[in-house]
Amino acid sequence: MECELIVVGDELLRGSVVDTNSAFIARRLAELGITVKRVVRVGDEEKDIRLALAESLIRVRLIFITGGLGPTDDDRTLAAVCGLINRSMSVNSTVRTRIQRIFEKKKIKMPRLAERQAYIPQGAKVFLNPIGMVPGMAIEHQGSIIILLPGVPQEMKVLLDNGIIDYLKNNKIVTYQKIHTALVRTSGLIESQWAPRLEKKLKKFPCVRIGYYPSVSGLDLVFSGPDEFNVKRCVSLAVELLGDNVYAVAEKSLAEIVGDLLRKNRFTVATAESCTGGLVGDLITSVPGSSDYFLGGVIAYANDIKENLLGVSKTTLERHGAVSRETVNEMLKGTVRITGADCAVAVSGIAGPGGGTKAKPVGLVYIGVLAGKKQRIQQYMFSGTRELIKQRAAWTAIDQLRRVLIRL
Amino acid sequence: MECELIVVGDELLRGSVVDTNSAFIARRLAELGITVKRVVRVGDEEKDIRLALAESLIRVRLIFITGGLGPTDDDRTLAAVCGLINRSMSVNSTVRTRIQRIFEKKKIKMPRLAERQAYIPQGAKVFLNPIGMVPGMAIEHQGSIIILLPGVPQEMKVLLDNGIIDYLKNNKIVTYQKIHTALVRTSGLIESQWAPRLEKKLKKFPCVRIGYYPSVSGLDLVFSGPDEFNVKRCVSLAVELLGDNVYAVAEKSLAEIVGDLLRKNRFTVATAESCTGGLVGDLITSVPGSSDYFLGGVIAYANDIKENLLGVSKTTLERHGAVSRETVNEMLKGTVRITGADCAVAVSGIAGPGGGTKAKPVGLVYIGVLAGKKQRIQQYMFSGTRELIKQRAAWTAIDQLRRVLIRL
Repeated sequence: MECELIVVGDELLRGSVVDTNSAFIARRLAELGITVKRVVRVGDEEKDIRLALAESLIRVRLIFITGGLGPTDDDRTLAAVCGLINRSMSVNSTVRTRIQRIFEKKKIKMPRLAERQAYIPQGAKVFLNPIGMVPGMAIEHQGSIIILLPGVPQEMKVLLDNGIIDYLKNNKIVTYQKIHTALVRTSGLIESQWAPRLEKKLKKFPCVRIGYYPSVSGLDLVFSGPDEFNVKRCVSLAVELLGDNVYAVAEKSLAEIVGDLLRKNRFTVATAESCTGGLVGDLITSVPGSSDYFLGGVIAYANDIKENLLGVSKTTLERHGAVSRETVNEMLKGTVRITGADCAVAVSGIAGPGGGTKAKPVGLVYIGVLAGKKQRIQQYMFSGTRELIKQRAAWTAIDQLRRVLIRL
Repeated sequence: MECELIVVGDELLRGSVVDTNSAFIARRLAELGITVKRVVRVGDEEKDIRLALAESLIRVRLIFITGGLGPTDDDRTLAAVCGLINRSMSVNSTVRTRIQRIFEKKKIKMPRLAERQAYIPQGAKVFLNPIGMVPGMAIEHQGSIIILLPGVPQEMKVLLDNGIIDYLKNNKIVTYQKIHTALVRTSGLIESQWAPRLEKKLKKFPCVRIGYYPSVSGLDLVFSGPDEFNVKRCVSLAVELLGDNVYAVAEKSLAEIVGDLLRKNRFTVATAESCTGGLVGDLITSVPGSSDYFLGGVIAYANDIKENLLGVSKTTLERHGAVSRETVNEMLKGTVRITGADCAVAVSGIAGPGGGTKAKPVGLVYIGVLAGKKQRIQQYMFSGTRELIKQRAAWTAIDQLRRVLIRL
């Protein structure tokens, strides 16, 4: 079954608030196999809401509207809906009593305006709001369902999970097919290089869709289809093709996976960072419980720190420069020496925009990892802004540690 | 002038990614007095993109489309646009060469698929992407403008600010009323507490609008109106009211402002981080040229590192715990001793979700700064997820350094 969402609010259109409600609703509906086909964001004007609803009613039989249900003059969702589908409104006494009680508890006389939040379209099903005033509502209209929810995210979520979802499951208009999805997370792959190979390998499974979601830490693949067995087959074939580039077949981050590997080996890790400035440590400690394996490290931004804290030799720095294989090698050794960690990660590079030369341009980064007796130092050329180069270098460092750990 | 945005991507419809692009574009367009009237989010299917564009072309004369411009089969924005307005496409040789160079730099043969990203609709104006492959495009069609931008937020932002906005300003179809805007960036303020005071103070200026944009590093205020003098008056009055909480009256980050203050005083700075895990260093080094004043620091996650590298005494750790005023005090002293920096920042706290106790709950963070002869250690209770607590602690640490530096 398909549905559409209408998100109402001037603040959302202007960009002063980011709409997160629609993402939440979409995820919940996906679990029922209901696909969101369109999200329309409009302002507070009645005619804009009304037009958006009229259009959605042409396309789908299930429509969610969030926002614009408050008591003030800029809340016009109810007027728009009732105007379009020609329903009268009346005060719902249960809702009214609840609103009254909230004011009594605060020892404030209920303002007349607040009563507006008890207005309900004729024939609507009401879902009482346990943490706010505005109720949720469901209106059936000529074979379609219109669900109205408040715009406050916490209230919307409570109403969705405590009433609306069950209402949809039991409603005859709603038909749903369970869709199976599986996530495969990879690092080090370029979408345009691997997508054709993957699609060639999976061409016998036309009913399984592949979605590609690139981010700075890697490329996520989402396989989805109505048949669970076929989705699982595709995941197996993809994992076979992509090999070590696959770091997780679950909702786990690269930092979590590296944490799992360290824990499994009873290893501790420490870091020595130059151009990433602490970002590798920040990413490692994004994982709850990372204190089990992360000892800490040195941010060696200035050469003096590389010498005095990590023991990188003056000769190495003078002969090869701070951005070199030799310096990273000594950073690794120094990190292990001063922290006693079993593993070390060291990064030195040029994040830019200044500081680049012809021989050592912006984006040049050396990354070294040491795990047990294995060591690997690699040279990279990253592109992008200063921020992106830092992020790419930091994630690559964590991934390089992973690749060494899985081959121990 | 009014405009509409079309946001393309299955991942956005499904809710696996939250759309932040449309909020960014809306804010930028507001500065040109262009109002976003509707944001339509559709999936990757060509017919859905095509229908959304057809509808928008009926209502407005300026349309932005983001996403769906990549090289794979699920990127169908160009096909949808060219199909609807009947344009042919051809390879743009400049874009093609740039894509080729990116692969050459990585020493990878350019895959055939990657060339798709060099396809440009006939007659489109091309905006080269300095940090990625997909260019921005502007197409004029029967008195309307269609702007195409990649979905990756960093790339979209760079293209918007370096080309698209200027293109709109100079385009005859675009009519805009110059809206004067001024940004006031603050830290440490709660919107609901300060908005009423500010609005009371500025009630004589009804034609100046105030926008509130809270983020983890502080609250941004945007003053806008048709009259430059009035906007400037409001900025002065706001700065007067908000005092030291204002850190910039310009597009500068808190880290940049602290960098400016350090440079002005010819000070260097070093860090000692426990719960923030390197994030303070990462934020300080987000500023180009930060190597002028940032020496580096120690990520002292484990207590052994606090003792062995920073010289925090065992007695202090045993008596007061790692999360204490006393430990932070010794972390500051140790940082200055081992790095020789003029200023130091030290952070120790409990980021959670585990590790909290009744006496020291999750969110408790001690932050110390030392600048010249001044030192200030403060206790904070931050709320939110592990990630938010880390971010709030790191930004607060940088802000605390700022507040000491401006009062030297």
